[in-house]
Amino acid sequence: MVSISIIGYGNVGRSLARAVLAAPGLKLVQVFCRSASNLPVSSGIQFVHTYEELVAADLYIICVKDDAIAEVSSSLPLKGALLAHTSGSMPLEVIDRKNRQSVFYPLQSFSAAKEVDWTQVPICLEAGVAEDEPLLLNVAEQLSDTVTFLNHSQRKKLHLAAVIVNNFVNHLYYRAEELCDANDIPFKLLYPIIMETAEKIREMPPKEAQTGPARRNDQKTLLSHRKQIEGTALEELYKVLTTSIRQSYE
Amino acid sequence: MVSISIIGYGNVGRSLARAVLAAPGLKLVQVFCRSASNLPVSSGIQFVHTYEELVAADLYIICVKDDAIAEVSSSLPLKGALLAHTSGSMPLEVIDRKNRQSVFYPLQSFSAAKEVDWTQVPICLEAGVAEDEPLLLNVAEQLSDTVTFLNHSQRKKLHLAAVIVNNFVNHLYYRAEELCDANDIPFKLLYPIIMETAEKIREMPPKEAQTGPARRNDQKTLLSHRKQIEGTALEELYKVLTTSIRQSYE
Repeated sequence: MVSISIIGYGNVGRSLARAVLAAPGLKLVQVFCRSASNLPVSSGIQFVHTYEELVAADLYIICVKDDAIAEVSSSLPLKGALLAHTSGSMPLEVIDRKNRQSVFYPLQSFSAAKEVDWTQVPICLEAGVAEDEPLLLNVAEQLSDTVTFLNHSQRKKLHLAAVIVNNFVNHLYYRAEELCDANDIPFKLLYPIIMETAEKIREMPPKEAQTGPARRNDQKTLLSHRKQIEGTALEELYKVLTTSIRQSYE
Repeated sequence: MVSISIIGYGNVGRSLARAVLAAPGLKLVQVFCRSASNLPVSSGIQFVHTYEELVAADLYIICVKDDAIAEVSSSLPLKGALLAHTSGSMPLEVIDRKNRQSVFYPLQSFSAAKEVDWTQVPICLEAGVAEDEPLLLNVAEQLSDTVTFLNHSQRKKLHLAAVIVNNFVNHLYYRAEELCDANDIPFKLLYPIIMETAEKIREMPPKEAQTGPARRNDQKTLLSHRKQIEGTALEELYKVLTTSIRQSYE
């Protein structure tokens, strides 16, 4: 039985706490949450609101914003404990050296509104010393089917790739919705092609899956599209994405 | 029982022929395919290779490339028959006037490699005369759960929106894969967040679902990302998408 405490109760901390509670081989010791308001009653979680209340645990997982990790890790009244942060972009070393440094990066987009299935969340690990790797691996594998060790350079690149396929893609959904709204077209007509596009890349690489006027270099359609969006927020996006597609197939 | 013949046997024609065959209230009369090679044996489809072999049907659905629709529709030895094209961007009038013009636009990305569930394919209809609307509606509703009438202006906008959420999004998947490959990171680590991003917009509008450094205006992360992709194909895409996200929340 591995004992875990979670520091921070935002979207990641909240989701992780539920997952740890549900794992038979993991024990959720405490969850630190600065504010005492709006916490779930009868969640089975023991909340603490000051660092001084924290008791011993095998692993403390810090689920706070990137630029708060350093301060939180140095403020904790712990020494020689195993601390992990959950950031895709920060190095291991951001954790104060008086404790053992590690990274426990769950590659998913967490929101309050939508529950996540942790078995499907890839977890990327890094440990400051090799001795801590087995424990991190043990914890991660009890939560997820996909666990991998990545160094900081790889993790940063993966985080950037996630920004592309999550943040940028979602923004394109938004621009498409805007276009539908402005023309009295129900945006939900696009749900099936959105799902098909996401699913297709499991069956063939995106480079092969690419279709459309830019891929075909269909100048007539490209021109017609450009005319339709002249002077709108889509104009620059359309130009740059079309050029980038063309360049990939030259 | 509505009788249908399909003109053209590319990705759309092939998928549509299978769907028509499977619908109890629809009869697939013939499928026109110029070439006689590589056709499936024992598919239950009666193929013809010249227009002269075409016999009477209630509806002829033309599944050829956009710029071939006009020529095909004028070459068919039919008069007063109901013809539909399947293009998102072409007007009704591209169909030769000697027949009744209509549009039967299935909003999905069709490929040879992946079978599509037609009940989930939105079908957008348009008829030159109101008298033909009930038959088109009857056929479309036997195939799909989502059928709607759209005029040409709306259909063009919807097609453009589909290019954004399909072609452009797929290209972003490709650029992310490139980044993973260059850094020895398995691209499949991104599958779950790709699916989550696509699924999330059914539960909340994309504008609300937006997260990430551009949304938060997190200059430190944005700068770190820009440094990592300096001089690569991602540089311009990153700049334009980040700017567009910023502008949406100002």
